[in-house]
Amino acid sequence: MIEDKNQQRTPLSELGEFALIEHLTKQFEIKQVSTVKGIGDDAAVLNFENKKIVVTTDLLVENVHFDLSYMPLKHLGYKAIMVNLSDVYAMNATATQVTVSIAVSNRFPLEALEDLYSGIQTAAKIYNVDLIGGDTTSSTTGLLISVTAIGEVESDNEVYRSGAKPNDLLVVSGDLGAAYMGLQVLEREKEVYKVNPNSQPDLESYSYIIERQLKPEARKDIIKLLKDLDVKPTSMIDVSDGLSSEILHLCKQSNVGCDVYEEKIPLDPQVIATCEEFNIDSTTVALNGGEDYELLFSISQEDFPKIKANPNFTIIGYMADKNSGMHLVTRAGSKIPLKAQGWKNFSS
Amino acid sequence: MIEDKNQQRTPLSELGEFALIEHLTKQFEIKQVSTVKGIGDDAAVLNFENKKIVVTTDLLVENVHFDLSYMPLKHLGYKAIMVNLSDVYAMNATATQVTVSIAVSNRFPLEALEDLYSGIQTAAKIYNVDLIGGDTTSSTTGLLISVTAIGEVESDNEVYRSGAKPNDLLVVSGDLGAAYMGLQVLEREKEVYKVNPNSQPDLESYSYIIERQLKPEARKDIIKLLKDLDVKPTSMIDVSDGLSSEILHLCKQSNVGCDVYEEKIPLDPQVIATCEEFNIDSTTVALNGGEDYELLFSISQEDFPKIKANPNFTIIGYMADKNSGMHLVTRAGSKIPLKAQGWKNFSS
Repeated sequence: MIEDKNQQRTPLSELGEFALIEHLTKQFEIKQVSTVKGIGDDAAVLNFENKKIVVTTDLLVENVHFDLSYMPLKHLGYKAIMVNLSDVYAMNATATQVTVSIAVSNRFPLEALEDLYSGIQTAAKIYNVDLIGGDTTSSTTGLLISVTAIGEVESDNEVYRSGAKPNDLLVVSGDLGAAYMGLQVLEREKEVYKVNPNSQPDLESYSYIIERQLKPEARKDIIKLLKDLDVKPTSMIDVSDGLSSEILHLCKQSNVGCDVYEEKIPLDPQVIATCEEFNIDSTTVALNGGEDYELLFSISQEDFPKIKANPNFTIIGYMADKNSGMHLVTRAGSKIPLKAQGWKNFSS
Repeated sequence: MIEDKNQQRTPLSELGEFALIEHLTKQFEIKQVSTVKGIGDDAAVLNFENKKIVVTTDLLVENVHFDLSYMPLKHLGYKAIMVNLSDVYAMNATATQVTVSIAVSNRFPLEALEDLYSGIQTAAKIYNVDLIGGDTTSSTTGLLISVTAIGEVESDNEVYRSGAKPNDLLVVSGDLGAAYMGLQVLEREKEVYKVNPNSQPDLESYSYIIERQLKPEARKDIIKLLKDLDVKPTSMIDVSDGLSSEILHLCKQSNVGCDVYEEKIPLDPQVIATCEEFNIDSTTVALNGGEDYELLFSISQEDFPKIKANPNFTIIGYMADKNSGMHLVTRAGSKIPLKAQGWKNFSS
């Protein structure tokens, strides 16, 4: 579906491991003052002075987390960084460094890895993180990317999943379900392509949801905005596995219950239209789709004036006493228990 | 060759991803004061106060870096940690935390991963590092382990590859070539086993070299010893790809030459005996074998009295002016240029 227009194919075997890493990373710049030494020694050296640091890691595996038949390698590199930065921001921290390791089979030429690293570099530049290390190795099959992201946070500014209190407001950034519906469109087009490789799909009306799937953005801007608004969430998590699963994490770790209002869940019009086309319930998609990389957080009621009417935020419910349970209040007004279906077991 | 005596086989599909991580890591304790929050949130939170931190990462891939037909999973878990800690120590730092991510195919039952994590736990306990995060995912084939290790170092105590000066002494800890010869023995026994699965190999006389291959130790003790002796190396690297390759790294990054004396290269008697048995030159094995995880470093001549006659160290040569080149001085007294053959291109 995505045509490879790059005709040059340099076998990886032409370069040794050291030469490969050097080749792929030579255009990366070091910009963080906390990076004392990046790539090129046994380990990177960092200096955060009195700040706390946060560390998170994620593994992306071909044909488990991504499908190269519709995921361009450049976007994959970008997304691999986003997935990790999103976790850093979910701690209310600033992302500062990443390490990227890849295992890759011989079917990939050097030019493919250059595309992957160009996406990584774009992400590093836009999000102002330094690439400080990594490992490159061969794999018997496919492509695997392991990213570790590091961030810094002023002492006592970090936000855990565990700090929500009853009556806190539950807030989410952006909108939900788009990445999942983008995936549905891409999967459908892949099937069409299999039958007729000459078909030219018109994806214009799905541009937003496809971009949310192929090129998600981690919400660095939200962390800055919260700081500017002088709001420190009482708990926070990023929405990677679906809103429902993340709400349950916050509630369980904070030892509270919650009421979430179906009618408040923010949906883009393209999500609603595509859900209608696919005959899928949009609330189910928002609750269980995942890969939104939005931030879900709770705030104390007294911070309500600071965020109210801000278009970046939607208040979708409130935390409650643990004994009252975790519920979705439907448009019809009935209360149903929230369940974590997650991405893998999703069925409409 | 290694018989699986564990008859219980719980399919991984019985546990979800969260349950799997929780199950595998629940017995891990947090001991470092710098670990503010370990596993269980979007990211770990660390506080190093005024120390610098070092970060390193390595990827181990089945049938590229290890062969499960003779590598027990428990040892593999241990070795995956050692490989990374060795890089931390090579910065003259103390290892404090690790993250471990694994991609695993369905052919592994839960009990296999428990074995792997029990090796990781043993390593974490002995080397006093906290497991603070990771990711667990399925893979289409085989097992892949991605470890990121973090360490701390007092400001200005870190040692790079780049600080060696002409006339500095070149020193190595322990002995070399054993892990490589251990691998040769294991590979031979694997072939014998293929022909006759009932053969009972007598590996008694290879115990040291096999242990060096299957259960290497990172030289935490050497970092402590150097501190106790008040010696700060001018440059340092760990020996993972072979002595020759590592010497060239130090020389190139320090902009110096060197003379290394063949007769000084430390070899265990078992290495010498096994090399004779396999008809391989032991110097070639020491120079190019790799996986020794010893520390190679340069010290100023004035520190010579502090390390002389210490059985942990062997002075194998000295740094020279860049223009004089990098040479091995053979037992016969001739000078031959040092080359990095590394592990992969090794041939006797």
